[in-house]
Amino acid sequence: MIKQDAPSPLFQQLKEAIAADITSRKYGLDQAIPSERELCRLHGVSRTTVRQALDQLVAAGLLYRVHGRGTFVAQPRVNQGLFRITSFESSIRELGLVPRTIVLRAEWVPFDLGPGGVLQLVPDQGLYCLELLGLATEQPMALYRSYFEPALGEVVAGRARLLAGRGLAFSTYQLYAREVGSRVTARQTFEAGLAGREVASVLQIHAGAPIFNVTSVIFGPGGRPVEFRRAHYRGDKYRFHVDREHVLETVPEF
Amino acid sequence: MIKQDAPSPLFQQLKEAIAADITSRKYGLDQAIPSERELCRLHGVSRTTVRQALDQLVAAGLLYRVHGRGTFVAQPRVNQGLFRITSFESSIRELGLVPRTIVLRAEWVPFDLGPGGVLQLVPDQGLYCLELLGLATEQPMALYRSYFEPALGEVVAGRARLLAGRGLAFSTYQLYAREVGSRVTARQTFEAGLAGREVASVLQIHAGAPIFNVTSVIFGPGGRPVEFRRAHYRGDKYRFHVDREHVLETVPEF
Repeated sequence: MIKQDAPSPLFQQLKEAIAADITSRKYGLDQAIPSERELCRLHGVSRTTVRQALDQLVAAGLLYRVHGRGTFVAQPRVNQGLFRITSFESSIRELGLVPRTIVLRAEWVPFDLGPGGVLQLVPDQGLYCLELLGLATEQPMALYRSYFEPALGEVVAGRARLLAGRGLAFSTYQLYAREVGSRVTARQTFEAGLAGREVASVLQIHAGAPIFNVTSVIFGPGGRPVEFRRAHYRGDKYRFHVDREHVLETVPEF
Repeated sequence: MIKQDAPSPLFQQLKEAIAADITSRKYGLDQAIPSERELCRLHGVSRTTVRQALDQLVAAGLLYRVHGRGTFVAQPRVNQGLFRITSFESSIRELGLVPRTIVLRAEWVPFDLGPGGVLQLVPDQGLYCLELLGLATEQPMALYRSYFEPALGEVVAGRARLLAGRGLAFSTYQLYAREVGSRVTARQTFEAGLAGREVASVLQIHAGAPIFNVTSVIFGPGGRPVEFRRAHYRGDKYRFHVDREHVLETVPEF
């Protein structure tokens, strides 16, 4: 209910009203919301107010526009902060969806100098590979391939299977806090890429669809590398954000 | 020169030797480096050592492999940290390339509720739009479309033209530190996308190539929004990284 005399601006009230209608599923996914004219009539506000509210909802990723056809409810996207690690579970719960993790693969693999080198292991040890798929209300969101030193990998995989068997969601780093200690360092690199056939098929997207390829190395308290992970996040489901304060440097000319 | 009795491991020495050959342009861009067998012979090291060095150079993005054809020198990528803002100039200089910024567009534009709303402006003010293209040794890297309140936009655009006229490289935020104050806050959102035709043509990549779409809002010291920017970074030229320490939370089951 839009109040002309409320302290918050009309477009803000309208924005919240429409967002609430999306959350309550009054408007379903990819369904059109009422036209700008109808929204003016329904809420007793001006066209400018309606446009401002819609523009901000589009910018926030809740709605999308199709030229000449109208405004539609967007697939929700995870908007993950990069300053702290957010577990897969809480990031999906925030969207109002149900998270679940599946174990796709958990086994010893032959030594590979890529992950093996990063983990500072020697070839005769082999490696443990754990592949997890994160689902949001049964829809694939992200594929994680992690490598561990074999003994730790066995422990982590055992816990992963146990939790997955109960239908729960989890992230790898939650599975080894007890062994590794709770204060760790993460180094992550983000690349924009296109889904190859194998990744596309697991994530149920088209080959060539945009994805984030994220490489992570997690280091234990002493700086010892614990996990090497290569993850693929659906580009249509994820965005990452950073908020920070900083001091500007000017160019020498000024 | 690989030394069997040096304190650093052989693969590390070989890695540094090959990286030096890339930096010195002994091997050019997209040119094949010697085969594994030749590298063994040239440096007097084992096949395992050669593979370990190459694997790490591939992982670092300096080389890439083409199955059945060999190992090639990769296009260098900017590897930009997300904890502090790095100017376009310094990020390109770090690659050993020559940065330059071009002004593609600098003009008043009609009010748009997207950027206008974020900047908390009223419709009758209009907006100032500044479009910059960042080049690395004359190759397009990133396209930035920034919006400002008109009076500030004029000042920023004047400085941009002046610096671009001198063939220099710069980032927008360097152009308004004097007006806004040097302590600002940035909020940035990263999306993985595909280049549309217009962006592809400016960045000289194929339509459908992977790009980062980065939306930024820069706030002045009092929390007042100063700049709204939508930038497109070539996916084949950029990666972003975060390094951080954090405390693990375990799942309740453990």
